[in-house]
Amino acid sequence: MTSTVACWVTLSFMRVFGIDCGTEITGFGVVDSDDQSRMPRLTCRAFGAIRLAKSKTMAQRLKQVYDELSAALELWRPDAVAVEEVFYSVNAKSALKLGQVRGVALLAAATLGLPLAEYAPLKIKSSVVGYGLAGKEQVQFMVARLLELPEPPSPPDAADALAIAICHIHTAQTLSLQETRG
Amino acid sequence: MTSTVACWVTLSFMRVFGIDCGTEITGFGVVDSDDQSRMPRLTCRAFGAIRLAKSKTMAQRLKQVYDELSAALELWRPDAVAVEEVFYSVNAKSALKLGQVRGVALLAAATLGLPLAEYAPLKIKSSVVGYGLAGKEQVQFMVARLLELPEPPSPPDAADALAIAICHIHTAQTLSLQETRG
Repeated sequence: MTSTVACWVTLSFMRVFGIDCGTEITGFGVVDSDDQSRMPRLTCRAFGAIRLAKSKTMAQRLKQVYDELSAALELWRPDAVAVEEVFYSVNAKSALKLGQVRGVALLAAATLGLPLAEYAPLKIKSSVVGYGLAGKEQVQFMVARLLELPEPPSPPDAADALAIAICHIHTAQTLSLQETRG
Repeated sequence: MTSTVACWVTLSFMRVFGIDCGTEITGFGVVDSDDQSRMPRLTCRAFGAIRLAKSKTMAQRLKQVYDELSAALELWRPDAVAVEEVFYSVNAKSALKLGQVRGVALLAAATLGLPLAEYAPLKIKSSVVGYGLAGKEQVQFMVARLLELPEPPSPPDAADALAIAICHIHTAQTLSLQETRG
């Protein structure tokens, strides 16, 4: 068990800011991982969603996402930012739109010099639900359970953002454990 | 001819900043339109290209595009920013990457409160070469001719950015003319 304990010591405290980019709603969530107990304790510090007004132009919407994400990142000062990797889309037009939102989200992290991690959707769901093809409700349910929330976080975009943050913490723990054992 | 003259009076002076977004090179160009003579005179104030280092992470590249475009926009203070409309791509992955660059370019314009105009590639080429399916060299040649440059602007991304700016000026003139006549 020594190596396992060493792993938690290496990690000690970590705050992760997860972002779930979307062209209408962008979810975000802040999760802390602490080693006060032997098992790392996950705590939800905040979650929310940036809803983009359809009446605004695309440039105005991108500014809204950037401004709100930047403000949240400055407030929570995470150790890392985690986002979903996207390699597919309904079509090129929607991929381009999603890319625009993703671009300003990555910029917000880079402007504050925060390290960025990306995870495939399958990995995120596996990490939280244990099943890569889990549905939105299953993710919401398991995120609430892992973070000891009184009810599933809503909207689903915020739950997805928390799941991305949890996935990063799990991955960092696994890597740290491997390094300690290796 | 009265209406035509009225059109130039309405337009008087206009500075347009064209941006040609790309995942490796993003071109930009600044064009002034002036009505000192009866025919509006187009003047190239600047053009250039932002080359993204492959050694950098995507987030660092997006920050570079945003920082350099923001600096150029603040320096030239255009009346409008013009970009290419993109509705197609080789695949969703490349559309997403291009979207990320486009997102930070639109954000740079929105942050300075600059109006944004978008034009389809066919319209841009028609406006400059008179033929929507013109090649890169034809665009470079005609941009040099319209702006009285000693040689075709290079790289082609900068020429494309100047073409987008010229397209916006032509469109604004046409609209102004229609309003005056209407």
